[in-house]
Amino acid sequence: MRVGVLTGGGDCPGLNAVIRAIVRKGVQEYGYDFVGFRDGWRGPLENYTVRLDISAVRGILPRGGTILGSSRTNPLREDNGIRRITENLAKQEVDALIAIGGEDTLGVAARLAREHGVPCVGVPKTIDNDLPATDYTFGFDTAVNIATEAIDRLHTTAESHMRVLVVEVMGRHTGWIAVHSGLAGGANVILIPEQPFDLDQVCAWVASRFQSSYAPIVVVAEGARPRGGELILKDDTRDSFGHVRLSGIGEWLAKEIERRTGNDARTTVLGHVQRGGTPSAFDRWLATRFGLHAIDCVRDGDFGTMVALRGTGIVRVPLDAAAERIKTVPPELYEEIGVFFG
Amino acid sequence: MRVGVLTGGGDCPGLNAVIRAIVRKGVQEYGYDFVGFRDGWRGPLENYTVRLDISAVRGILPRGGTILGSSRTNPLREDNGIRRITENLAKQEVDALIAIGGEDTLGVAARLAREHGVPCVGVPKTIDNDLPATDYTFGFDTAVNIATEAIDRLHTTAESHMRVLVVEVMGRHTGWIAVHSGLAGGANVILIPEQPFDLDQVCAWVASRFQSSYAPIVVVAEGARPRGGELILKDDTRDSFGHVRLSGIGEWLAKEIERRTGNDARTTVLGHVQRGGTPSAFDRWLATRFGLHAIDCVRDGDFGTMVALRGTGIVRVPLDAAAERIKTVPPELYEEIGVFFG
Amino acid sequence: MRVGVLTGGGDCPGLNAVIRAIVRKGVQEYGYDFVGFRDGWRGPLENYTVRLDISAVRGILPRGGTILGSSRTNPLREDNGIRRITENLAKQEVDALIAIGGEDTLGVAARLAREHGVPCVGVPKTIDNDLPATDYTFGFDTAVNIATEAIDRLHTTAESHMRVLVVEVMGRHTGWIAVHSGLAGGANVILIPEQPFDLDQVCAWVASRFQSSYAPIVVVAEGARPRGGELILKDDTRDSFGHVRLSGIGEWLAKEIERRTGNDARTTVLGHVQRGGTPSAFDRWLATRFGLHAIDCVRDGDFGTMVALRGTGIVRVPLDAAAERIKTVPPELYEEIGVFFG
Amino acid sequence: MRVGVLTGGGDCPGLNAVIRAIVRKGVQEYGYDFVGFRDGWRGPLENYTVRLDISAVRGILPRGGTILGSSRTNPLREDNGIRRITENLAKQEVDALIAIGGEDTLGVAARLAREHGVPCVGVPKTIDNDLPATDYTFGFDTAVNIATEAIDRLHTTAESHMRVLVVEVMGRHTGWIAVHSGLAGGANVILIPEQPFDLDQVCAWVASRFQSSYAPIVVVAEGARPRGGELILKDDTRDSFGHVRLSGIGEWLAKEIERRTGNDARTTVLGHVQRGGTPSAFDRWLATRFGLHAIDCVRDGDFGTMVALRGTGIVRVPLDAAAERIKTVPPELYEEIGVFFG
Repeated sequence: MRVGVLTGGGDCPGLNAVIRAIVRKGVQEYGYDFVGFRDGWRGPLENYTVRLDISAVRGILPRGGTILGSSRTNPLREDNGIRRITENLAKQEVDALIAIGGEDTLGVAARLAREHGVPCVGVPKTIDNDLPATDYTFGFDTAVNIATEAIDRLHTTAESHMRVLVVEVMGRHTGWIAVHSGLAGGANVILIPEQPFDLDQVCAWVASRFQSSYAPIVVVAEGARPRGGELILKDDTRDSFGHVRLSGIGEWLAKEIERRTGNDARTTVLGHVQRGGTPSAFDRWLATRFGLHAIDCVRDGDFGTMVALRGTGIVRVPLDAAAERIKTVPPELYEEIGVFFG
Repeated sequence: MRVGVLTGGGDCPGLNAVIRAIVRKGVQEYGYDFVGFRDGWRGPLENYTVRLDISAVRGILPRGGTILGSSRTNPLREDNGIRRITENLAKQEVDALIAIGGEDTLGVAARLAREHGVPCVGVPKTIDNDLPATDYTFGFDTAVNIATEAIDRLHTTAESHMRVLVVEVMGRHTGWIAVHSGLAGGANVILIPEQPFDLDQVCAWVASRFQSSYAPIVVVAEGARPRGGELILKDDTRDSFGHVRLSGIGEWLAKEIERRTGNDARTTVLGHVQRGGTPSAFDRWLATRFGLHAIDCVRDGDFGTMVALRGTGIVRVPLDAAAERIKTVPPELYEEIGVFFG
Repeated sequence: MRVGVLTGGGDCPGLNAVIRAIVRKGVQEYGYDFVGFRDGWRGPLENYTVRLDISAVRGILPRGGTILGSSRTNPLREDNGIRRITENLAKQEVDALIAIGGEDTLGVAARLAREHGVPCVGVPKTIDNDLPATDYTFGFDTAVNIATEAIDRLHTTAESHMRVLVVEVMGRHTGWIAVHSGLAGGANVILIPEQPFDLDQVCAWVASRFQSSYAPIVVVAEGARPRGGELILKDDTRDSFGHVRLSGIGEWLAKEIERRTGNDARTTVLGHVQRGGTPSAFDRWLATRFGLHAIDCVRDGDFGTMVALRGTGIVRVPLDAAAERIKTVPPELYEEIGVFFG
Repeated sequence: MRVGVLTGGGDCPGLNAVIRAIVRKGVQEYGYDFVGFRDGWRGPLENYTVRLDISAVRGILPRGGTILGSSRTNPLREDNGIRRITENLAKQEVDALIAIGGEDTLGVAARLAREHGVPCVGVPKTIDNDLPATDYTFGFDTAVNIATEAIDRLHTTAESHMRVLVVEVMGRHTGWIAVHSGLAGGANVILIPEQPFDLDQVCAWVASRFQSSYAPIVVVAEGARPRGGELILKDDTRDSFGHVRLSGIGEWLAKEIERRTGNDARTTVLGHVQRGGTPSAFDRWLATRFGLHAIDCVRDGDFGTMVALRGTGIVRVPLDAAAERIKTVPPELYEEIGVFFG
């Protein structure tokens, strides 16, 4: 049995832990061989591979990033993409393929499995935690911890200068990182893409916080937008998967707050720091268990499936579940945490 | 409406986050008054109280420990304990009591609710994560992160000197901290109370690790015991709840490994460091949501209940659930992670 | 004896540790009284004070920011600034004033001492570490640790996507934070204000790093500029001390590198996160010792002086030393670390 | 030119940073070859070597421990130790030897240089920071940060249960880690080997802390002893360099405090966690600069010397300086920080 492994999309703390678990269990318990495909779907597209054995995965558990490299290469947009992939998988004598990635990466895997009979198993990866099929994805907890720590640090600066501090966190389409880190960091306003915000309300919360002699922290997801949507942002470009890349909401918001309230306001954009570095203990645990269960899917011949977390247990769901509608922050949860605003 | 709050048992990162959420929502949304009882059940027993309002809970979200103090005082073992409590609750004109604690603390609350009609709501707290009624308890994630970080650090010392390093972590009756931190830290052996260990097997794992030119890390829960149970430990004393206090397994194990394998072995006992300090982002999130839902139970007049985590949602279960059999590490989970041993 | 204390300029981890040490030793050993002036020189200007005793400084050692608040208010630019200060100091019956701040804050103190006989003692504070009179200032080590940790995290993202990552760190006039965190973080290029950079050289270093199959990290101080100075930045505004506030070099640089090398490049601006939060152990040590020695200056009647670090010892230097030419990164040190570029 | 490198004694965060700097500068700027000797003096004794080139030092900057391994092997205690070393150095065609280690490791290097003309350069390493020739040694700052973080965590547990917490930190002969981490962590008592302590005084400080409604943290260096010296400790054994290995003072102290004051007291022994893991930014900076200057000594033919830190600069001192009397905590510094006791 020879198993291919690839990682696609943005990198995420825990990818290496998944790879290590797959290889350790595959080799030690099932005697499988492995081949690593480089840079997501670019690997099978261009027959670009890397050695993947026990020694290749030594010491990678605590390391962020992915030893296989990643890319946003989308084979559905390449000439003969699917055919080149199936040919290269055959050339590599691969009996099964484990794809680790987000909805785009797994969408390709689902189509390969469904339409071309490629024996695929998926491991979900989205730092935004926006996949309905699983309670949590790995990397999310690490990102939330990093953002929370940053917010903790910013409180003292806000207080010392009685300034508004706006913190822009990841989250183009969903506010999971914003609500988790904002709540954990004791933010006074949390703005998310799911709920267009009212600038007057934001300014009222800011003012109310100053009235009790404290300085406000405003956490804003990068995809949050004011009601009415008149906002014009500077970098509306699309990446290779067709995603809009946005930025600038934090800076825009700080300027508006300054202008309307007269309070000094500053912005911190956390950026890539949120997705790098060593995974938290929870993410190492989750990623490792995803890897162990993914290789068990291979052993069971259970293809076209994806591993997922339900409560404390790992379950198997159809690979198509990765393409399901996005998991957004429910209004009642946003309302629940609203008690801390202002 | 006047609500009493107390925290009992060993301290745990997140207690303050629970208290803050209860008070913030209770005051702001429901207009309740609060009274804090000091030092667990000692508070209502001795009418020992502390002011608990919005200003008392300012800034406590990121702080470990509990502003209410804690103790292991067990009113069931005191003369007229129950009567003194009900009298003092009446004296304080308390309409509801929220008890935050482990099986002992909540066991008292359950009995007060069931047998004496005291309107109690429980918030479960056990750093060991050994309560079946909830997927996770707050404090556990923080403890696991601290232990994992310590294991990360010990790897380099182990490698540099080609020594066995034994790390003793918390867990008298269950191995949850050991399996989570051991797996996340890349330990080569993990020993838990649920599975009496075979010293020969441990030494074989140690030897196998050295054969691949790496030095082993052995993570052992404080309650783990060798098969046969011939181990005699030095500090078998009982605390006020009747618990046996054990210690010394780490040191004993290092000596046995040295004696049997001839390898240099050292012990690190993580101890109280695991339960102190600022809570992780996950624990702040969970603790805060527990607090918000506990005060909602009070508002709903839903007494004799306890909040709990199921998947990503907070549910209510009977307070008696706190006294249910302990949640142990299932054999199949221990076997699942066994692929990394040796 | 009644001693006034104020903190001016940007906040810096360790300010609270200085205040605590001053008050603890002043009260316990010398029996002094204290008055806290709020928000830097605004306090004595407007007779805006706060209680400052043993209980006010409890628990503040590990806390970032300053319990006294801060501002960039410059009394030399206010009408009758100096006279209002001397009057308010008299009104408060202050026998000595300890000013904790940077060259602007201490410059005012020096002039008050020299020209108006106000008994002042200075404690130097600059997160940029650019004061020649002292080996190190507190806050700097914390900032360097935070920046280094961020760079550590960014490496894995850079490698996974084979991208250039540009990290903009603090340092308007000097590159101390850049050279320390860049060296400690294993950056491949470090750009500082003291050495205008050659964009072709930067791109050559970037290319050379990719040639050895690794992705480059470029650390750039916010005040670094390309040779020729053609750079036009977006936010050239002045603060109340007349300082130019610059920003945008990181973003500009990433775009130029992308344009010239064809490599994907991203920017992370660390911003205020670098100056907030709990101080490192070194900064707590240094700040505490500065505080202890500052109050000894008061006891000795040694006014017009400032404490400073020389090797491992605390010395006293004239307050005017705070206004000395800035301490820049010497060319030979920059050359020494250049071995790691590319 | 062919240069041998070895690391001896206990491991210390920063060793890898030294090795990397030596090799990077030696290869890139001077075109030298390198040979790594394994496990301290055992390497040249037994001709046990390892490849040491640019690729061997990639990625090791942030890693604790030493890629060369370490041991306490003392060639002066081996049959023909010196002769075997000089023969093996000749066999390896080594033109210079850089020894990184503490007084024992460097003592051997000094004797080799002085009595046998071996061209040696030394890099001082002692996590205890007890070498008079240098202001600081690398590893010390990391250890102090780890101990301080642990003390920060323990405060909340101490307060919650109104318990005495005794923290045993490294320091057999000197109290540097104890005074730095104790001061930075806000300890209420700090006990060091240089100053035999009076148990009555310790108990008085403990009681005084409780009187102001706070719980005391007692930091004790492992080598601290009560006045009179009646203490009998359990593990008085000697290692291969003839050092006494002591332990148990923390536990003994907690029991005595409990017995005498009636307060509950617990012990945490930080142990090996203090010396493992990623170095702090300061230690990476210092270790890297030591490495850069050590290879410059080789280039200059400046043998029999050792690099050292003075203020912010690196200087060269005679290798014999490593064997100078130990640098102890001066009584006046201990008195200075005594203001925080009780």
